[in-house]
Amino acid sequence: MELKNMLVGQSGGPTAVINSSLCGVVTEAGRHPEKIGKCYGMVNGIEGFLKGRFLDFEEALPGDGRKGLLTTPGAYLGSCRYKLPEDLDDPVYRELFEKFEELGIGYFLYIGGNDSMDTVSKLSRYGRKTGSSVVVLGEPKTIDNDLIHTDHTPGFGSAARYVASTVREIVLDAGVYDTRSVTIVEIMGRHAGWLTAASVLARKCRGDNPLLVYLPEVPFDQEAFLRKVEECFAVNNTVVVCVSEGIRDKDGVFVCEYDSDAGLDSFGHKMLAGCGKYLERLVRARLGVKARSVELNVSQRCSASMLSAADQQEAFMAGRYGVQAALGGETGKMISFVRKSDAPYSLACGLEDVDDICNKEKTVPLTWITGDGTDLGEEFLIYAKPLIKGNVQIPEDEDGLPLFVCRK
Amino acid sequence: MELKNMLVGQSGGPTAVINSSLCGVVTEAGRHPEKIGKCYGMVNGIEGFLKGRFLDFEEALPGDGRKGLLTTPGAYLGSCRYKLPEDLDDPVYRELFEKFEELGIGYFLYIGGNDSMDTVSKLSRYGRKTGSSVVVLGEPKTIDNDLIHTDHTPGFGSAARYVASTVREIVLDAGVYDTRSVTIVEIMGRHAGWLTAASVLARKCRGDNPLLVYLPEVPFDQEAFLRKVEECFAVNNTVVVCVSEGIRDKDGVFVCEYDSDAGLDSFGHKMLAGCGKYLERLVRARLGVKARSVELNVSQRCSASMLSAADQQEAFMAGRYGVQAALGGETGKMISFVRKSDAPYSLACGLEDVDDICNKEKTVPLTWITGDGTDLGEEFLIYAKPLIKGNVQIPEDEDGLPLFVCRK
Repeated sequence: MELKNMLVGQSGGPTAVINSSLCGVVTEAGRHPEKIGKCYGMVNGIEGFLKGRFLDFEEALPGDGRKGLLTTPGAYLGSCRYKLPEDLDDPVYRELFEKFEELGIGYFLYIGGNDSMDTVSKLSRYGRKTGSSVVVLGEPKTIDNDLIHTDHTPGFGSAARYVASTVREIVLDAGVYDTRSVTIVEIMGRHAGWLTAASVLARKCRGDNPLLVYLPEVPFDQEAFLRKVEECFAVNNTVVVCVSEGIRDKDGVFVCEYDSDAGLDSFGHKMLAGCGKYLERLVRARLGVKARSVELNVSQRCSASMLSAADQQEAFMAGRYGVQAALGGETGKMISFVRKSDAPYSLACGLEDVDDICNKEKTVPLTWITGDGTDLGEEFLIYAKPLIKGNVQIPEDEDGLPLFVCRK
Repeated sequence: MELKNMLVGQSGGPTAVINSSLCGVVTEAGRHPEKIGKCYGMVNGIEGFLKGRFLDFEEALPGDGRKGLLTTPGAYLGSCRYKLPEDLDDPVYRELFEKFEELGIGYFLYIGGNDSMDTVSKLSRYGRKTGSSVVVLGEPKTIDNDLIHTDHTPGFGSAARYVASTVREIVLDAGVYDTRSVTIVEIMGRHAGWLTAASVLARKCRGDNPLLVYLPEVPFDQEAFLRKVEECFAVNNTVVVCVSEGIRDKDGVFVCEYDSDAGLDSFGHKMLAGCGKYLERLVRARLGVKARSVELNVSQRCSASMLSAADQQEAFMAGRYGVQAALGGETGKMISFVRKSDAPYSLACGLEDVDDICNKEKTVPLTWITGDGTDLGEEFLIYAKPLIKGNVQIPEDEDGLPLFVCRK
């Protein structure tokens, strides 16, 4: 078998374990010296690669250095939000494959979410069309957990653990005063409520806060919400409400748009922010109680403090599996997770056609949403609990702060 | 010696270690059965106590149960923001001391910040005036680190560790794209910039982000700020700026007020929010670059994930020392920290007159602030580093989430 080189990149928003997937790829590549020559990393994804930016892992992270990737959030290689043209005849495709040839690339792995799988789909289709021997595979990654044809995505477990533990702490904080108060916690998730759903894991017992949870899957009704909050006050002075940033009403208008206009990102998505702030003001004005809002913000995707050991190990496993699949000649596929059983929790990797996956979104099943759209049922708990299991010790520097691996 | 009971309360905003101080008090009280009978806790501070709400620690947290306090953020006893009247002839004082007598209280300890020390001062002055035998002491607590006559305050170290590690993670997140961007991180601190100063600990090396740090101690100049950001772009595409919520201009106008009006809390403080959001919009509008803002919010004071072992141990020590001082007949004092040396770091407890402390604020020395008011000098690093040292393992429940002790 001819010795070919491997090229791996990261794309889209970072997660706590996107570097664990990368570590899996680099580690497995190193185990096949008879088939894989160099392992290169694109710096800033396909966009940086087009500008000639890449690194050789042997030089960048020699020896055991790559182990630090397992506990480093963010994207070690840097990322991009670059959408390849729909037209496969666009000269950018030929340019890319010529660069692949120059570098002797036989295997191309791209770690990312929905939009990145679009890149994988296009490159693999171009490769097939032109008879290229380069295999192109996608490694799943997103805290949003919204990729179809996979039980869940690497990155979700750690983000869910961060959300659950942080909401549990916020509930303690909210409850210190003996006066009626509403705390709105705004959680990431544009169209899928998986991460907001994870906030129910924060409950220490039945009937504990968060008392109300609102996902984008269910149309939001502001008057019904205010009534629910008043009902909660009958049993608890402290009401913590978890809302997805993407909640919208029955007409499809985002609640954050009630407040202000929102711009578009480079993929044409609305840039949302502020439904928590809006609801805070609404509660104060209409119910006359103390209200505040907390936006969990980027720590959901970049905090290492609540890294889930299960998530980290699965991300690493997905990385390794991707290399094995590439060596097996697979192309145009995404590595998926197949749950074998809930108890004991058991998971295997699989392969799914990336053309089916890209630009689609998996949302929380409506049958899992209970309490007039304000709670999650047992099915969600069974689904989510194995994903947040296990604490990971983060190495520390001499000041006692997390020690991360950074690109030189 | 006559057997007297002890009464302890918590007041003001919670911290990660206010319960460690409480644990120190309860533990030390239990070591003097010949002098201290019952140890009671006021529920919701002096305000709840006036309504007859208190608990007996022997019933509430028997045996080893209280150990969980060491790793539980928030205020186990609940808190209040209740200001006693200035006039010591107000009937509330007689009412309180009658309640003390009914319960056989000989020792009163109040854990809190500036405003709580005002309560300690008034109660001890009333006690002295009326010849009461009840001794009244204050246990320091505040993430703001703004109490005078003490090297630092319990709660600051853990909050500083949270700020430093979270900013380090945000810097990773901010750097993943290869485009110019400004991330504004808004950090708690109304008038004192200690916590914002701690963000410089996030730097992994010289010249690393956060590149700019703004404290309330130095008047903020918006035009100078914009020029500084542009200067930063000359060396780094990613600019992370840490600002205190309380930054104000040379006329004393809070930057957050540029945006909107702010209300007053029950102590007459301005309720600030939003200078980060304001600066985000300013940067976008004036510099035309990608900008976002992150408000670290309540996790600064209620997260257990970055508990500093040094902070936890010192809070516990302060709690114990307070009981010993009370048994020694001290009253009208606050437990203070006296730093014996920086290297090796060595600390002892002391006592300071609480009348001198309450309603005053300790700010960051101007000589420690460098870089035209955008950075901190070596003095701050030497001061702060010992306070954030040491990781604490938080007990976990069966789901792998932090296990906290809660009042029944």
